[in-house]
Amino acid sequence: MRRKKIYEGKAKILYEGPERNTLVQYFKDDATAFNNKKKAVIEGKGVLNNRISEFILNQLNEIGIETHLIKRLNMREQLIKSCEIVPVEFVVRNIAAGTLANRLGMTEGTILRRPIIEYYYKNDDLNDPLVTEEHIEINNWASNMEIAHATETAFRINDFLIGLFRGVGIKLVDFKLEFGRIWKNEDCKIILADEISPDTCRLWDLKDEKKLDKDRFRRDLGGLVEAYTEVALRAQSISDSMRSIAVSEESPALAEMHDHVVSGHAILAGAAHVELGRAVAAQLVCSTQGDAGLCGVTFSAPLVLKAGASV
Amino acid sequence: MRRKKIYEGKAKILYEGPERNTLVQYFKDDATAFNNKKKAVIEGKGVLNNRISEFILNQLNEIGIETHLIKRLNMREQLIKSCEIVPVEFVVRNIAAGTLANRLGMTEGTILRRPIIEYYYKNDDLNDPLVTEEHIEINNWASNMEIAHATETAFRINDFLIGLFRGVGIKLVDFKLEFGRIWKNEDCKIILADEISPDTCRLWDLKDEKKLDKDRFRRDLGGLVEAYTEVALRAQSISDSMRSIAVSEESPALAEMHDHVVSGHAILAGAAHVELGRAVAAQLVCSTQGDAGLCGVTFSAPLVLKAGASV
Repeated sequence: MRRKKIYEGKAKILYEGPERNTLVQYFKDDATAFNNKKKAVIEGKGVLNNRISEFILNQLNEIGIETHLIKRLNMREQLIKSCEIVPVEFVVRNIAAGTLANRLGMTEGTILRRPIIEYYYKNDDLNDPLVTEEHIEINNWASNMEIAHATETAFRINDFLIGLFRGVGIKLVDFKLEFGRIWKNEDCKIILADEISPDTCRLWDLKDEKKLDKDRFRRDLGGLVEAYTEVALRAQSISDSMRSIAVSEESPALAEMHDHVVSGHAILAGAAHVELGRAVAAQLVCSTQGDAGLCGVTFSAPLVLKAGASV
Repeated sequence: MRRKKIYEGKAKILYEGPERNTLVQYFKDDATAFNNKKKAVIEGKGVLNNRISEFILNQLNEIGIETHLIKRLNMREQLIKSCEIVPVEFVVRNIAAGTLANRLGMTEGTILRRPIIEYYYKNDDLNDPLVTEEHIEINNWASNMEIAHATETAFRINDFLIGLFRGVGIKLVDFKLEFGRIWKNEDCKIILADEISPDTCRLWDLKDEKKLDKDRFRRDLGGLVEAYTEVALRAQSISDSMRSIAVSEESPALAEMHDHVVSGHAILAGAAHVELGRAVAAQLVCSTQGDAGLCGVTFSAPLVLKAGASV
């Protein structure tokens, strides 16, 4: 079943969803940095981000922060609410790093006196420039009310994420959020969209400050998938047992899974089913029609395929 | 009498002042743009800026906005209060132009829905980057109270300048302000410093949008001194009769005047005095010691020297 592609970004693709006002968000393995000047395909990245982002956004939903996530569908896809993305990236920073350090001459690693927020205009042609609230308002990218709500939400998310990561020995340096508008009758509200993952956060190991995020790619440090797996494992967004079943990326099972996604179930065709059957039998979900489906399959480094709990 | 140079900037020099907590601000003819990448000497610019800035800052003082200006001393110098400059440039914009247009992809000339303020960190090595209030605060460049006061003052100055220029057929597009701290016993306050001139404002003719500001230099449009003179004349910061007495820039009178400034009077030595004597006799100020001094000398384009009213 081929779906209509709505939008393809640098790290994700949006497809038409199964119901009105829904989309399917597909996580690619593509890594880009410096406004697309640096590119690579890093196998397994998309699968890990899908799982980590699902884990975080689900928890945000639980503390009353509405997000676009409805549910994870399979190892690379999420069912999300369709929303109109606000063309502003909201960046919360706790420690000086990246452009904050470079632009203002601050030493990377300096703990800020308090968390700060920055706004960047989402525009590749202009290199996503830093903007002020007034720039956003006069260009109608968002209203003052929307900026205020998103900013307040961003600081709440910061509190939550600092706690989440600190508990597992990781410092949250900074992170980027995107928000979108959804309408209900005449009312419009702003919800969290996009993803929260090591692609969009700077995460440093608490003890040795080892970078566990996309800076491994930006700065050619290597070991990106291993670092993302470490984050996923520590945050318990994947369980340790998920490292156990190795399947080649070339596996026909995987090829099938990319193409045969129906309502959140990855339907495995004959050979692929057999191939995975033994290992994941205990976790297989059987439909009333007798089809065998895998729910919540996670594919993580190094090329590990695992059937998780039912979504 | 040689004075101690305290600081030399791109367009001005600060000398030790005659009294405690004062400085002499000397307006150079040097024009720079694009963080010093483009440079030129434009004869007469400093003289015009000295006069225009004096005119504006005096009026601001009158409406209760405290500035560093004590009085203009001579054609290139002002006596000012010594203050600790806040390392932030405050830019108020009414119409999109310059970096606002370039960075955000806005069309130059777009009238903003409301005036906005921007903050830039004064740092040549970092190319004066745009910063947010939070960047300023966490780096201790200024306190929140100081930013709030300076911002409020900047918007008041905007209202005043829009009116001033609109009355003489000029649109105020944007302008840059600097503020400084002065102490009185334990109390610290923020006052307006630096200058307000066509070097620091974008000014367009109301009818034909002809640029009457430093963009003539930045964009190689020529006629900078003529444009600045036009602004000075229209704003009545110089009188039309000041165009009348032409003196060569190489005049020994001028050379003397650079070096012989005492307490706000440009003391002319023998030959120079004779050279200028006839033309400015009516406006000469004679001291009780019998020295002849010129007060309020203005030197404007095209290379016109004129004795103005006593300061």
